Amino acid sequence: MNGAESLVRTLIGSDVNVCFANPGTSEMHFVAALDRVEGIRCVLGLFEGVVTGAADAYYRIAEKPASTLLHLGPGLGNGLANLHNAKKARSGIVNIVGEHAGYHIEHDAPLTADIEGIARPVSHWVKTSRDARSVAADGAAAVEAARAAPGCVATLILPADTAWGEADAPRLARAPAPRRRVDAAAIRAGAKALGAGAAAALLLGGAALRGRALEAAGRISARTGCRIFSEFNNARMESGAGRVYAPRLPFSVDQALAMLADTRELVLVGAKTPVSFFAYPGKPSVLTAPGCTVTEVADVGCDLAHALEGLADALGAGSIAPAGVSPHAPPPLPSGTPTVEGIGAVVAALIPNNAIIIDEGVTTGRNFGSLTRSAAPHDWLSIMGGSIGWGLPAAVGAALAAPERKVFALEGDGSAMYTQQALWTMARESLDVTVLIFANRAYRILQGELTNVGAGTPGPRGRDMLTLDRPDPDWVSLARGYGVEASRAATLDQLAAQLKHALAAHGPHLIELLL
Amino acid sequence: MNGAESLVRTLIGSDVNVCFANPGTSEMHFVAALDRVEGIRCVLGLFEGVVTGAADAYYRIAEKPASTLLHLGPGLGNGLANLHNAKKARSGIVNIVGEHAGYHIEHDAPLTADIEGIARPVSHWVKTSRDARSVAADGAAAVEAARAAPGCVATLILPADTAWGEADAPRLARAPAPRRRVDAAAIRAGAKALGAGAAAALLLGGAALRGRALEAAGRISARTGCRIFSEFNNARMESGAGRVYAPRLPFSVDQALAMLADTRELVLVGAKTPVSFFAYPGKPSVLTAPGCTVTEVADVGCDLAHALEGLADALGAGSIAPAGVSPHAPPPLPSGTPTVEGIGAVVAALIPNNAIIIDEGVTTGRNFGSLTRSAAPHDWLSIMGGSIGWGLPAAVGAALAAPERKVFALEGDGSAMYTQQALWTMARESLDVTVLIFANRAYRILQGELTNVGAGTPGPRGRDMLTLDRPDPDWVSLARGYGVEASRAATLDQLAAQLKHALAAHGPHLIELLL
Repeated sequence: MNGAESLVRTLIGSDVNVCFANPGTSEMHFVAALDRVEGIRCVLGLFEGVVTGAADAYYRIAEKPASTLLHLGPGLGNGLANLHNAKKARSGIVNIVGEHAGYHIEHDAPLTADIEGIARPVSHWVKTSRDARSVAADGAAAVEAARAAPGCVATLILPADTAWGEADAPRLARAPAPRRRVDAAAIRAGAKALGAGAAAALLLGGAALRGRALEAAGRISARTGCRIFSEFNNARMESGAGRVYAPRLPFSVDQALAMLADTRELVLVGAKTPVSFFAYPGKPSVLTAPGCTVTEVADVGCDLAHALEGLADALGAGSIAPAGVSPHAPPPLPSGTPTVEGIGAVVAALIPNNAIIIDEGVTTGRNFGSLTRSAAPHDWLSIMGGSIGWGLPAAVGAALAAPERKVFALEGDGSAMYTQQALWTMARESLDVTVLIFANRAYRILQGELTNVGAGTPGPRGRDMLTLDRPDPDWVSLARGYGVEASRAATLDQLAAQLKHALAAHGPHLIELLL
Repeated sequence: MNGAESLVRTLIGSDVNVCFANPGTSEMHFVAALDRVEGIRCVLGLFEGVVTGAADAYYRIAEKPASTLLHLGPGLGNGLANLHNAKKARSGIVNIVGEHAGYHIEHDAPLTADIEGIARPVSHWVKTSRDARSVAADGAAAVEAARAAPGCVATLILPADTAWGEADAPRLARAPAPRRRVDAAAIRAGAKALGAGAAAALLLGGAALRGRALEAAGRISARTGCRIFSEFNNARMESGAGRVYAPRLPFSVDQALAMLADTRELVLVGAKTPVSFFAYPGKPSVLTAPGCTVTEVADVGCDLAHALEGLADALGAGSIAPAGVSPHAPPPLPSGTPTVEGIGAVVAALIPNNAIIIDEGVTTGRNFGSLTRSAAPHDWLSIMGGSIGWGLPAAVGAALAAPERKVFALEGDGSAMYTQQALWTMARESLDVTVLIFANRAYRILQGELTNVGAGTPGPRGRDMLTLDRPDPDWVSLARGYGVEASRAATLDQLAAQLKHALAAHGPHLIELLL
């Protein structure tokens, strides 16, 4: 067995059974091994940003890592931005990067680059295999690293001669350790802070926004009167009917400061002290009110259900009904010209039961939470590292992780433009994804940010850097170019009709909403 | 004046007057400064790979650096692959990357990343400005670094508070030093080696493939009978009628070994010892024949016209007629089903006078040289770092550097897919670019490489990783989605008719050639 086959068998034996790939010459032996060994689904992306973004969302839904297969330093470079997003999301990824054969590197051929150097800023773990006999053990170590709570980007670099050389038997990755549990002192400190009632708030992040953890937060709120918030970005948040509502801290510094103004005791469970997304002249980076005490009960790597249930028990909220549970009360379908509120209402009214929402809606989608809380139950996935071009790839990964669920991607046009090659993968794999493009033909967020940072009102040259017009991209034409069915809506009525059609059918569909 | 304005004035004063940009919040003050200060053309790319690829080709044609404007670590990451290509091309770029305000970095907001770490593998020079008063001096230093022979990627990282803080007056970059001249000993050694006549070969790279340098090589060949080759990839090679023909070393190891088999004395002028693009089991990395002596006369940073004219003078070839000058004898237009030879003939027959050819044709375009040598005179630009997705951005940069010249981009469909957002920039800026897509719906090169590395014949899962079919991308639909006129050709006759139309008209046009 060669090194490539020993790796593929190691992955499959370690329950890694999806590989998002864009291979090159140095990875050909892995491609050949994929044919010989049953048990891993290989999905081609026509750009590496598709590959890495898909792996991020796959982990969030499947709760186990996928692998990637990337071609040398530049292939890794093309996947870098979505690896950044995945690292911030704490998504486990077995990120496999080919390299020249060891003896070839000194010759500085065109594709030679410092792969470890490129990988390190976006990886928690980096290793280059020494020889073919090391590949299985290194592969198992990469899987273990990727699965380590709360999820890590593990980059394994494989020189081509480690793929074609004679190798040892595959290894199995050890099962991941159970998540760390917080101690009684942390629970006591949190419970004490939450005793402040309405002047206290629980700030939830990571797995605290799901299942038993989220329900326990609702019981704590019912008992103490504390408020519940979630971070602005969340890797995966359960929302909709029947779930405890945890409103997101706003992107806007002023709005976030206002939301936290009355909080004297902030208790963190899976979240970090809230900070602004960017710095703005004259505004604080840290968003808590002056004098607010911050108590961290559990970081994102801990067993957060255990932490919140422990807090609930300590506060005598073990068996009461949770507060803040959302009703199933989707808004009526609005009509007429698209407004942010109107679009939010259409989305909320039509979210399918148990859908996965991919949110890269940026300015348009930012405030949908208060509307969608009463929609059918769903998971809401945010872009975690702020690097746009995540949403369409993430929709690919989520759809592969949960083929039985509808994936509904909300996309700003500027963001979707970065990695639209993902549409082709949706078509090839017949993924059940509905994409809604908010076509405002601008980096709308930047038009506001120009003012927020005190840079004034743009003149024509500045405006040109913030707009996607002249010419207007035609998303229907682009989608069809990738083999994806598409339609265009100019009113809320058209949007609703087209969304109903797309969400009821199986397979990819794109709707361009003109704003 | 704030830091942003001091930088923009420094760039303009230092003759950097094009900025390829994809800015974000941290760069808003620069965008505002672009409005206030006349003298710099700012060109938006809807993906950072467009920005950096354009800057690469801009340098090759304009012979001076453009600047970029990128948003934090992930924006730099998206531009990484084409910076890698630019670094290998030795293209000077003032690569400007925004960063969070200095005091904000410790808070680890979503977009926080190790920007210097990401930049280093693709940069010759990296600096982060300390404060607003340093920005002008740092900007001038970056321009100087970018212009240093043979051209460098200079990455300047600007925390947002250095943009909005009060700054000093702009600085001017010092004029670049003249290129280093090789000494008499090097000339003597080269002349001695070339005395071997037909057993000697000149391997040319960099600026040795242009103007007086290339002509001197032809005179040397006329005098000594030595052969002339160029490297497989060349940043910019003059070719076509009236120019000395310097055939490229082939990509295929076996073909390259055969081409160099009889060479006993290899003389390098602006080139490196030839090595294979990839390593293959059982084949050598270094392509020279056993026993061949390699003499380096001048590296790519030297004054190569001086070196070749010195060699010519030393060999008594100062005023004879050069050998190997190509006639103007474009082939007749072929007809019928597209073959590689037929496509090459159509291209050769229709290359406009003084055109700039952007070659990312990969398998289809690889052997056009023997046909196009007799076409109208033109510049031929190759992808230098092997990272596909370079061609369409490069066409943008070349067209902006030479608005009076026709740019003709030869593109593999797999390569063009990486950075097709460049089509939008062509439309917005009305760039005079004709794009020819070779639509074989495969990573055709990899289908051969699978065999070359000894990985066997692929089964269905392996084949799926190497094909772009199911669905076939529709390039006409994609191009129209970006506002670019497009057509489809299935025969050589249709190709010729459509190319004639596109090359005669002004503005961007895409032709999808079905293979």
